[in-house]
Amino acid sequence: MPTFVQVLDFIGTFAFAISGIRLASAKRFDWFGAYVVGLVTAIGGGTIRDLLLDVTPAWMIDPIYLICTALALLWVIIFGRSLIRLNNTFFIFDTIGLALFTVVGAGKSLALGYPFWVAIIMGSITGAAGGVIRDVFINEIPLIFRKEIYAMACVAGGVAYWLCDIVGIESYICQLVGGTVVFLTRILAVKYHICLPILKGNDEQENN
Amino acid sequence: MPTFVQVLDFIGTFAFAISGIRLASAKRFDWFGAYVVGLVTAIGGGTIRDLLLDVTPAWMIDPIYLICTALALLWVIIFGRSLIRLNNTFFIFDTIGLALFTVVGAGKSLALGYPFWVAIIMGSITGAAGGVIRDVFINEIPLIFRKEIYAMACVAGGVAYWLCDIVGIESYICQLVGGTVVFLTRILAVKYHICLPILKGNDEQENN
Amino acid sequence: MPTFVQVLDFIGTFAFAISGIRLASAKRFDWFGAYVVGLVTAIGGGTIRDLLLDVTPAWMIDPIYLICTALALLWVIIFGRSLIRLNNTFFIFDTIGLALFTVVGAGKSLALGYPFWVAIIMGSITGAAGGVIRDVFINEIPLIFRKEIYAMACVAGGVAYWLCDIVGIESYICQLVGGTVVFLTRILAVKYHICLPILKGNDEQENN
Repeated sequence: MPTFVQVLDFIGTFAFAISGIRLASAKRFDWFGAYVVGLVTAIGGGTIRDLLLDVTPAWMIDPIYLICTALALLWVIIFGRSLIRLNNTFFIFDTIGLALFTVVGAGKSLALGYPFWVAIIMGSITGAAGGVIRDVFINEIPLIFRKEIYAMACVAGGVAYWLCDIVGIESYICQLVGGTVVFLTRILAVKYHICLPILKGNDEQENN
Repeated sequence: MPTFVQVLDFIGTFAFAISGIRLASAKRFDWFGAYVVGLVTAIGGGTIRDLLLDVTPAWMIDPIYLICTALALLWVIIFGRSLIRLNNTFFIFDTIGLALFTVVGAGKSLALGYPFWVAIIMGSITGAAGGVIRDVFINEIPLIFRKEIYAMACVAGGVAYWLCDIVGIESYICQLVGGTVVFLTRILAVKYHICLPILKGNDEQENN
Repeated sequence: MPTFVQVLDFIGTFAFAISGIRLASAKRFDWFGAYVVGLVTAIGGGTIRDLLLDVTPAWMIDPIYLICTALALLWVIIFGRSLIRLNNTFFIFDTIGLALFTVVGAGKSLALGYPFWVAIIMGSITGAAGGVIRDVFINEIPLIFRKEIYAMACVAGGVAYWLCDIVGIESYICQLVGGTVVFLTRILAVKYHICLPILKGNDEQENN
């Protein structure tokens, strides 16, 4: 029987893979390209984290991530046209994935003895770096740098995790609070169109 | 005296470097930029594999790859205009390189005790990831995601290697079969214009 | 009290971060995106070097690089419009950073027992790879491949370091000479518009 966290992990991976595969299909990638972009979106962040932490990436131990991405590709091939109606469902799944990936990434860094500010960065990399590689592969400026509260939700969740830990709350409750903050920050930011200020003051650079 | 595999390795590295340098020259890179793009095309896949496997990248131990890329740059500088006539030769060399890199990458992973599905991925990364980095550097969508049977040839070769191993065939024959399958898959796919289906069903995304 | 090298390191990091943040602002990134691009410009080269050398990246041990980048972001937010007048100052700071990063990267590789040709490459990666990632993130062809003597200054400095070492000069003087060569090569190349030849001979490729 898979645990509750494993089920969330599967849902998150599936949603991340779908997001990569859909953007790949908009660029007319073939099936293989779409699979690779979906896979990289799902596991890219965790892989960079594991390279930095000097541990073996999770997908090299357990093939579940490769299988999950294959199922996501199959889903898009079969149900492609009707995916639009599920947009809100995928948004929720994607945000669940973001929250879980952040908490898992931060927890893994803490377990390896790194200080909390490293754990917050690793949580954000786990949640957001896959999307950055995806956008580099489809030759777009990474979305998270311009438009949405996305990685900032990871940072907020990481800080909440940290504060709970300082106060002395038990580890699994800290994680729950951290994940919830990621989830709510992202949901509320999208619902109320909250975004970070654009950096100005140097537009002249563009004429270079 | 270099071994037969070392000769093939040199030919493959040279062909990969030429492919990077030619694309860089089409984008009007300077000599240094062309050298870097050629080098990354030749050694990028193996470097990512070695980072994931947590071993020292081969080019940090043996400078032959750097020298080989320098010779490739010299070749393009001197014989640039006449390269076009050699297109078919380079295609054969490039495919030899792809086959060898795949088998070497898979074999290295198996020797480190990883399961076969990891070895197949590592073989494909060794063969195809250098070209992906090359395309990112010249600011194009990676070719292998859209057009050709390229990385799929690596996967096919890896699976053939695996099947031979399951049946109990000796290691070096498995490698020979794997490499031959990569070589033939790519040659036949190009000759008969075989390609993977394009992923459709989500073109509306493009209007986002 | 910080040492002289720590002061130079801070100045170099600040200048690298400013260069990333300014390019991000020209692409209308938000504050978070600008911070990430600034950070990656400052620490990206050193991180790739440390992954290749299999040691823990410096910014995971000391948060000074994250703080320095935050100060750079604050600086651009507050003084954005008046940065243009400081262009020459930043050019000098940037070149100091390049010289120091190169020497530090080469020295770290030598201390780990790698041969000199690896140290030269690692010095160049430390100095120049951050700017390559920056340009990939803002979706431009990396500047150093096309326009300027930049990474070549790192290579020149690394070779000077090497020659001093062969002659038997003391380590810290070798480093001083290496850094000075990087600094002067870059300053002189920009002042006298020296650049590498463009690679030609294959323009037909562009019509592919």
